[in-house]
Amino acid sequence: MVHTGSCIASLIGQGGSRKYHLTWRWLRYFKNDRDRRDLITCGAAAGVAAAFRAPVGGVLFALEEAASWWRSALLWRTFFTTAVVAIVLRGFIQLCSTGTCGLFGQGGLIMYDISAAKVVYSTPDILAVILLGVIGGILGSLYNYLVDKVLRTYSIINERGAAVKILLVIMISLLTSICSYGLPWLATCIPCPADASTSCPNTDVSGNYKSFQCPPGHYNDLASLFLNTNDDAIRNLLSTNTVKEFHISSLFIFFVAVYCLGIITYGIAIPSGLFIPVILAGSCYGRLVGRLFEPISELDVGLFSLLGAASFLGGTMRMTVSLCVILLELTNDLLMLPLVMLVLLISKTMGDMFNKGVYDQIVKLKGLPYMEAHPEPYMKHLIARDVVTGPLITFSGVEKVGNILHALKNTGHNGFPVIDEPPFSDAPELCGLVLRSKLLVLLKGKAFSKDMVLAGNKVLSKISELDFAKAGSGKGLKLEDLDIQEEEWDMYVDLHPIANTSPYTVVETMSLAKAAVLFRELGLRHMCVVPKSQGRPPIVGILTRHDFQPEHILGLYPHIRFQQ
Amino acid sequence: MVHTGSCIASLIGQGGSRKYHLTWRWLRYFKNDRDRRDLITCGAAAGVAAAFRAPVGGVLFALEEAASWWRSALLWRTFFTTAVVAIVLRGFIQLCSTGTCGLFGQGGLIMYDISAAKVVYSTPDILAVILLGVIGGILGSLYNYLVDKVLRTYSIINERGAAVKILLVIMISLLTSICSYGLPWLATCIPCPADASTSCPNTDVSGNYKSFQCPPGHYNDLASLFLNTNDDAIRNLLSTNTVKEFHISSLFIFFVAVYCLGIITYGIAIPSGLFIPVILAGSCYGRLVGRLFEPISELDVGLFSLLGAASFLGGTMRMTVSLCVILLELTNDLLMLPLVMLVLLISKTMGDMFNKGVYDQIVKLKGLPYMEAHPEPYMKHLIARDVVTGPLITFSGVEKVGNILHALKNTGHNGFPVIDEPPFSDAPELCGLVLRSKLLVLLKGKAFSKDMVLAGNKVLSKISELDFAKAGSGKGLKLEDLDIQEEEWDMYVDLHPIANTSPYTVVETMSLAKAAVLFRELGLRHMCVVPKSQGRPPIVGILTRHDFQPEHILGLYPHIRFQQ
Repeated sequence: MVHTGSCIASLIGQGGSRKYHLTWRWLRYFKNDRDRRDLITCGAAAGVAAAFRAPVGGVLFALEEAASWWRSALLWRTFFTTAVVAIVLRGFIQLCSTGTCGLFGQGGLIMYDISAAKVVYSTPDILAVILLGVIGGILGSLYNYLVDKVLRTYSIINERGAAVKILLVIMISLLTSICSYGLPWLATCIPCPADASTSCPNTDVSGNYKSFQCPPGHYNDLASLFLNTNDDAIRNLLSTNTVKEFHISSLFIFFVAVYCLGIITYGIAIPSGLFIPVILAGSCYGRLVGRLFEPISELDVGLFSLLGAASFLGGTMRMTVSLCVILLELTNDLLMLPLVMLVLLISKTMGDMFNKGVYDQIVKLKGLPYMEAHPEPYMKHLIARDVVTGPLITFSGVEKVGNILHALKNTGHNGFPVIDEPPFSDAPELCGLVLRSKLLVLLKGKAFSKDMVLAGNKVLSKISELDFAKAGSGKGLKLEDLDIQEEEWDMYVDLHPIANTSPYTVVETMSLAKAAVLFRELGLRHMCVVPKSQGRPPIVGILTRHDFQPEHILGLYPHIRFQQ
Repeated sequence: MVHTGSCIASLIGQGGSRKYHLTWRWLRYFKNDRDRRDLITCGAAAGVAAAFRAPVGGVLFALEEAASWWRSALLWRTFFTTAVVAIVLRGFIQLCSTGTCGLFGQGGLIMYDISAAKVVYSTPDILAVILLGVIGGILGSLYNYLVDKVLRTYSIINERGAAVKILLVIMISLLTSICSYGLPWLATCIPCPADASTSCPNTDVSGNYKSFQCPPGHYNDLASLFLNTNDDAIRNLLSTNTVKEFHISSLFIFFVAVYCLGIITYGIAIPSGLFIPVILAGSCYGRLVGRLFEPISELDVGLFSLLGAASFLGGTMRMTVSLCVILLELTNDLLMLPLVMLVLLISKTMGDMFNKGVYDQIVKLKGLPYMEAHPEPYMKHLIARDVVTGPLITFSGVEKVGNILHALKNTGHNGFPVIDEPPFSDAPELCGLVLRSKLLVLLKGKAFSKDMVLAGNKVLSKISELDFAKAGSGKGLKLEDLDIQEEEWDMYVDLHPIANTSPYTVVETMSLAKAAVLFRELGLRHMCVVPKSQGRPPIVGILTRHDFQPEHILGLYPHIRFQQ
């Protein structure tokens, strides 16, 4: 759902899809970096809000996990998005209250309502909860470790082509099916409780107290977990005032199966997530712990189950506030908040001792040049100049068309510094930065002149401002789209109208750590490094996101890693 | 509570209080800007968490309203703080469950639990709620307007001395007392309901169904609101399934009285807040609207009351997510969340059409140089050089003690650029920035030399690093504390060891709007403006927070305000 939400937002951000005739003129206003980024954040928030019926949780998820930069305007926009989601959801749930929409709307606006349980706890309970948090955090970080290993293996397998991908999916599906249908045979039939709130036994598609192979009046507890939607399995695990419903052995079998299946399923070529498998494994773990602590603890096993889910989520995702609110919105049990917070704190701390959160791991695995919020300690020992690499390609304020085409063809750079040289200035000085995408639009517009003169703003009257708007990913002009004649190569084009004349700059002797903070906090793509002493060319180099990656820096200075 | 929490945090951040012998050695680690700021944010979060028993709401309040810069580490720290608050609160509430702590612990962990009410609503209810939000937003922004006017008046009155201050407090107290004891006489006695959940009539200190002047078996509804703690008055207004408890006329009288009293009480010389008065007025307003819409609306008046409180909070504070969570944690009614979000959105939007949030207004009134998250539109037409004012005072890398003393005495500057000049460099170049506080420590340490030579790091062996730690507000060294002999004035001191050699710089032609973003996002105190062309002194000026204030800029360029 998070992915779907972000995809829809991204589609809107690139002005719809021309291929499928889904374009609107007004969408063109979003065609810029900032609006696209904001829209995608809102889409992710809407996804969480819809998946868990947790509008505030969605806002906080977007804040804590999705957004690199957070502005109060963005808070307000995500809040608006999730408010709309909440109101639409509420409307549909009401429409579907007659049961005409299948399983949608089950649980109403609160998916796993456990507010009926009486929340009483004292010192032994808290000790049990702390232990649960510690082990949950360790299991969560082990989950991350294994998911990482499995994903690396799958990415090698998946590279071998579509047939292998499908084979992998079939194998995992088969394994899951075998577990789901095979393992319930291990469980013994349990007589139905007299005071069951739902019908027992039950032969519906979903629900509690599954009959399976059992005689009338009995139910199979493992089947009630395995042969169910994930949603209902979680609901059964969280159910309160049903201490004896699941055998300890059944819980253990289900936990091991779900923990392992969750790990090997993520990363195969089907849409699958992390949240629900982790909640499922966690709530089973919590219920198991609750059963084990039954002799000394007053807390209901359903509440233990919630805490188990919290500990697993804390141990894998490493979020705090957003998970807290999502769990609150899922279960509607405000009185559990202090314990949920305690468990999240403990399990996150435990997890952080071993490895990083699962999303950070995946970002790293995908090789995305993600910038950490804090610079690495070794960056303090370097200066900005140290990591500048590669030959610098600069343009003059009024440049020959041929030179530009040559540079665009032979480099992959997306930003080029523009240097004003005599006669346009007394000495060479940095005029600004031009982007590849804007250069392409300018060249396409053919605002060339025979002589080396300033064109002024009449270029912009020739080319519409909207042509410069950010194109959708991979949808912009390409070098091959240009049709420049041989004789135009020697003509000149004035780059001043499209240059960003206020690029952010750092002095070459600036501490790399501080340069990284600047780059990250302002969300830059290019940063100009300027010389400290006078009488040298006005720019030393350009830093991009890649230049701040640990791989790049440690490749240049392998020994610096251990300096503190 | 927010204030108290922040004060305690600030005290810890400055290393305790030497005056009251409350110092610990380990507190010295917090003696720096960043830790103090973080601690104060955590203190504010703890205050909200304790006041409303809303730990997650506290985190979000600190995020949305208190913190200028938000880092994931801060999220995690505030969450830890409020988790501790929640657990301690829970412990004390359990300790006090026998009623030995007076009114503390009433309502348990949820102060105004209204989850018992059945939440049903359809189209007419939503229309009523939208109208409630619109009027609530307007009344909220009117509240801001009036608070601002009253505060301006009070600040003039309060300047006349302590006696006048006390007189003002006495007058307001007297007025409040007259209202509280006088107005209930206007209400008629109402027969006690047969199904009252609490005893009726009631002669306790606090509670519902106050007897006042009424005969046995009757209660005075206005007295039940006026002669109560604010907490209990809110609880009574939010009470559900008690539609007829309060007369429309009584609600109207109480609303007008509380609205006006809230406005004139804020700003007198007693500790008073905004949250509770606004919630009180808002919930009364909501209940009033609920009574008026009774013929067409199914929604309980208690829930209307909650929505009224939300609309007032949205209209005055202009927060969204944090208010939503605080209200959720106060009332434990998750099913109301879509409506609460809707009301907050509407009332915030309405309020924003008229004026700014109340906290923004107060910051402005106090004259604090607060930097808005977004630069003003007219800043796009200026460059950084345009707002640099005043004579620039620079030091050489190795400077005469006399010059430093002179500069410290004759200016109020807190940061001075250090310029390396021949023979220490080929041409004058910017070495870095030294802070006044560090200069004072260096001069106190008397690491002087007769000749103009580099001292290197041996200075730092003479002065402990801890001496350079940030002192508490107003607790640092002062110029008068120095004891520099006449003959030392001509000696030299090397400023390199204490200079920040990586100050953030902008080129003088940088757009002022972009410079403001840089200044604000990185939380700077000083920003160096460097020249664009070569052959000039290596620094043009220093920008501080004051230079970005609209008053300063519009003072220099009065006509620019209307340029877009």
